[in-house]
Amino acid sequence: MTQPAPVHASGVDNDRLSAQLRFVLETDKLKRILRRNLLVDGSRRENDAEHSWHLALTARVFAEYAPEGTDIDRVTELLLVHDIVEIDAGDTFIYDSAAVQDQVERERLAADRIFALLPADQAERVRTLWDEFEARETPEARFAKAVDRLAPMLANWHTDGGTWVQLGVSKGQVLEKVKIIAEGSQALGAYAASLIEDSERRGYFAG
Amino acid sequence: MTQPAPVHASGVDNDRLSAQLRFVLETDKLKRILRRNLLVDGSRRENDAEHSWHLALTARVFAEYAPEGTDIDRVTELLLVHDIVEIDAGDTFIYDSAAVQDQVERERLAADRIFALLPADQAERVRTLWDEFEARETPEARFAKAVDRLAPMLANWHTDGGTWVQLGVSKGQVLEKVKIIAEGSQALGAYAASLIEDSERRGYFAG
Repeated sequence: MTQPAPVHASGVDNDRLSAQLRFVLETDKLKRILRRNLLVDGSRRENDAEHSWHLALTARVFAEYAPEGTDIDRVTELLLVHDIVEIDAGDTFIYDSAAVQDQVERERLAADRIFALLPADQAERVRTLWDEFEARETPEARFAKAVDRLAPMLANWHTDGGTWVQLGVSKGQVLEKVKIIAEGSQALGAYAASLIEDSERRGYFAG
Repeated sequence: MTQPAPVHASGVDNDRLSAQLRFVLETDKLKRILRRNLLVDGSRRENDAEHSWHLALTARVFAEYAPEGTDIDRVTELLLVHDIVEIDAGDTFIYDSAAVQDQVERERLAADRIFALLPADQAERVRTLWDEFEARETPEARFAKAVDRLAPMLANWHTDGGTWVQLGVSKGQVLEKVKIIAEGSQALGAYAASLIEDSERRGYFAG
C-alpha cells in the first residue's frame, strides 16, 4: 500500500488526515483497473476511474429520467464509490458466468480492506453507499445502476458492436441485462431497447 | 463529432435525448486528454477524466476541511465539469507561462462549443458551474480549486518530485500556486505547506 507523506499540519488531527490520505492514495489505483469495453472512439479499453467520472456526469445529464424525487446528489455519490472494490477484486465482465459466481465474495473482502483505510466514521459511510448501490433497493441505487448498464451499451454501439461482437454475445443475453436499466429509469430502458434493435439490424449480436 | 445512434424511445422527447447523448459522447474525449503529472505509482500520465473522478472523491473525503456551510454536493458538481473545456483547449500546465496567457480565450471558445451540445437549459447550467469554478468567488469554488491544486502535489511527492524535478520548478513557484489551496481550506493549505517543506528536504525543487 502507498504510504502518504508524514503529516505535520497545524490545527488538524494529523492521524485522521493521514488515514484519509491513505485512502485517497489507494484509490488512485482505480485508474489502472481496465474494463472490457473500449472508449467511444475505439482507441483503447476504458478504466474504472474515468468510467466512474463519466457515469457521474451522465447521471446528472439524464437526471430528468430518474423517477420523481430521486436524489441526484446521492446517485452521484453512489457512482463515485461503486467500483472502488475492483482495485482488489478486478473488473468482472457481466457475461463471464464463472467470474460472476465468486464476485460477491471477492468484492466484499475488497470493501473490508479498502474502506477500512478511512477513519471509522467515513469507512462506515462509504460502506453504506456501496451496500446501497449493490442492493438496488432505493430509487437512487436503481438509477445509478441503470446508467452503469447503459454506458457500455453506448460504447459498444459506437465501436461496431465492441464486446458483443468480440465475445459473441447474443441479443437475448443483452436483453436480460437491460431489464435493470428499465427498473431504474423507464425512459433510459426504452432508449436501451431501441439501441438493441438497431444493434441487431447492424448484426452486432451472435446467432 | 461523434453522432449518437438515432433515438426512437417512446414516451421521451427524442430530440432532447439526442442532444444529451451528443454531450455524453463528446465528453468521452476527456479520457484522452493527458495531464503533465503521473499517477501515484508513476506508471503513466494521468488523464483529465480519471483526474476529475479522483478530485470529486477526494473533495468528499476532505469535506470536513472546507469552511463551515460549504455545499459539498455543489463542490462535487463543479469538479465533475471543471475540465471538460480541455477537450478542445488541452491541458495547460500551470508553470507554462506562455500557454497560460491565451488559456482563458481558448477555454472560453471550448465552453461555447461543447456546452452548447446540451439542450439550452442544461447548457446554461453547466456554463454557470464552470464560470463559478473559474471565478473562485464562492466557498464551493475555492474548495474545489484547492483540491484540484493539492492533487498534483500529492502525485509529485509520490513520484520522487515528478513534474517539479522534470521541469526544474523552484520552491517559490510552487509556494505561489499553493496560496490558492489555503484560500479554499486552511487545513489543506497547512498540509500542502508541510508537504512542500518535506519536498525541499528531499531536493525536489530547482535552485
